[in-house]
Amino acid sequence: MKGAVLYGPKDIRFEHRDDPKIIQPTDAILRLAATCVCGSDLWPYRGLQPIDGPTHMGHEYCGIVEEVGSAVKSIKPGQFAVGSFATSDNTCPHCQSDYQSACVHREFMLRAQAPFLRVPNADGTLVPTPGGTPSPDLVPSLLACSDVFGTGWFAADAANVKPVGTVVVVGDDAVGLLGVLSAKQMGTGRIIAMSRHEKRQKLAREFGATDIVAERGDEAVARVKDMTKGIGADSVLECVGTQESMMQAIKSTRPGGHIGYVGVPHGVELDGQQLFFDLVHLHGGPAPVRRFLPKLIDLVLNGAINPGKVFDLVLPLDKVAEGYRAMDERRAIKTLLRTS
Amino acid sequence: MKGAVLYGPKDIRFEHRDDPKIIQPTDAILRLAATCVCGSDLWPYRGLQPIDGPTHMGHEYCGIVEEVGSAVKSIKPGQFAVGSFATSDNTCPHCQSDYQSACVHREFMLRAQAPFLRVPNADGTLVPTPGGTPSPDLVPSLLACSDVFGTGWFAADAANVKPVGTVVVVGDDAVGLLGVLSAKQMGTGRIIAMSRHEKRQKLAREFGATDIVAERGDEAVARVKDMTKGIGADSVLECVGTQESMMQAIKSTRPGGHIGYVGVPHGVELDGQQLFFDLVHLHGGPAPVRRFLPKLIDLVLNGAINPGKVFDLVLPLDKVAEGYRAMDERRAIKTLLRTS
Repeated sequence: MKGAVLYGPKDIRFEHRDDPKIIQPTDAILRLAATCVCGSDLWPYRGLQPIDGPTHMGHEYCGIVEEVGSAVKSIKPGQFAVGSFATSDNTCPHCQSDYQSACVHREFMLRAQAPFLRVPNADGTLVPTPGGTPSPDLVPSLLACSDVFGTGWFAADAANVKPVGTVVVVGDDAVGLLGVLSAKQMGTGRIIAMSRHEKRQKLAREFGATDIVAERGDEAVARVKDMTKGIGADSVLECVGTQESMMQAIKSTRPGGHIGYVGVPHGVELDGQQLFFDLVHLHGGPAPVRRFLPKLIDLVLNGAINPGKVFDLVLPLDKVAEGYRAMDERRAIKTLLRTS
Repeated sequence: MKGAVLYGPKDIRFEHRDDPKIIQPTDAILRLAATCVCGSDLWPYRGLQPIDGPTHMGHEYCGIVEEVGSAVKSIKPGQFAVGSFATSDNTCPHCQSDYQSACVHREFMLRAQAPFLRVPNADGTLVPTPGGTPSPDLVPSLLACSDVFGTGWFAADAANVKPVGTVVVVGDDAVGLLGVLSAKQMGTGRIIAMSRHEKRQKLAREFGATDIVAERGDEAVARVKDMTKGIGADSVLECVGTQESMMQAIKSTRPGGHIGYVGVPHGVELDGQQLFFDLVHLHGGPAPVRRFLPKLIDLVLNGAINPGKVFDLVLPLDKVAEGYRAMDERRAIKTLLRTS
């Protein structure tokens, strides 16, 4: 088969590699229904995160189980399943406390920008869709559950989003937009999306944003304060990972308010004393997507929501390089890669 | 009257100053039953926090209301009252959301190491003791409510202490010891106190600690991991404010666990990416003591607890310099200053 390999900044190639095989008896092999490019893939693509030689890319996936190892019990060949970007046994103490992304057997997935994928710890990682193979038009939304939607949901959960309260979302990439959708699903009435990009503003509104703030930095904070009678927001979702976005999130939050941060921080340093006097709650990290998967899959299958709308560019897998380019240049929000 | 004034490192003087007077109609004047030296006073005393000329010290207080301004409604002369180190109107949006230490009218108290004290926003700041003037033997514990106990309680609250779970307390100064007491009051069974000081270990045990860890830094973290089957603690109270203590707290916490930090951070820098992958909850700041005062006063008056035990040195106010010295040299846990 052929898959995506990153060689260096802006150098992504689609090239031959061996088909994945069962290595551990707890593995499964998936034939992917689709895969995609993540905002976090852009860090190494832009040369902002070092890579250690040619790197197989991709960590978002769903598809049909082709084969399972001898120790796999609940996952069966023929099932359609979705898994998280972080594998989990779903039995260790961290999994039991619902932090599967800190599983003692966690592996961060790679190699998913390909037609086939080996999934370690299949029983603990994969969630089969109830009712058999879903209709193809649901595949984008199910794929989104694997990371970008699960991560947006975690941001809202970590930011303690409640029906009463004002929510701010910093970042208008796919994860931010799905943070808006998540907050809306949690019942929030007022959702302020920060975006200066017309197409993304439109999708944010469609997902439930009631207000748009196009300013950045201190000006954005001042706008939020204006909109909340000087108080600040109750819940802020940080979905970027830069120093500016993190400070924008913290400064937009009321004392006692909550920040859920899911943008992988790059060069972010927090001043302890400043954070102390801001009196905010801070929680974030690699999203424990496995915790949310059953619920998110249900929401998608019930037709309640359509998180797959973040995929505004669909390409065949062999055009993966264009998929990265379009996202890098912000021509596309998120690229779905067709595997067949 | 005479009170404590800090002139520079290790230079605290007891000298004449004007008696406080009503300035705003919302003020009250208290005749203090006692006052004390706070761990946070040691930062400027040690020259680790700059002062802007001679500085009146002290922010922990309780006593008899002598006089009130014309706009004070609920507080009456003759009442015995306790107030927080941070004043509050108790009506602004931040106060309404229980973060009185971020009140829009907040003033951080100073000048309490003296016989009389002006308390701004008396109605919102002071809590009278029910049942009139308490017996003198309760004064140390009521005084503790003003900051050190209220702050320890907030640390436990911010660290999400629950009856089920393991609690770690970093810091064996008075606030850490009262963090132990607070966690015990919240019903926790297992409380690991970090201390290498015999007298403080003993008081920690008396307050409810079940285990003592004398190691520091990575060794302390390893001990906590050993004691929790490799998982880490559910709730960690950070009661020091240094880089080492903060990292010790973060690294002792399980993924998804909570850190309540109340030691005023000095030179603390948090690496965003490291914090992200630690997956912890972080909350702290100047404690909203006013939120907890009615409950803490009740606990003291009911005789359920004796937080005043942290005062292991009692001096007349004119010996304030010795009070600082004893704490600086860790000969005393906390110094109570008698005003009469």
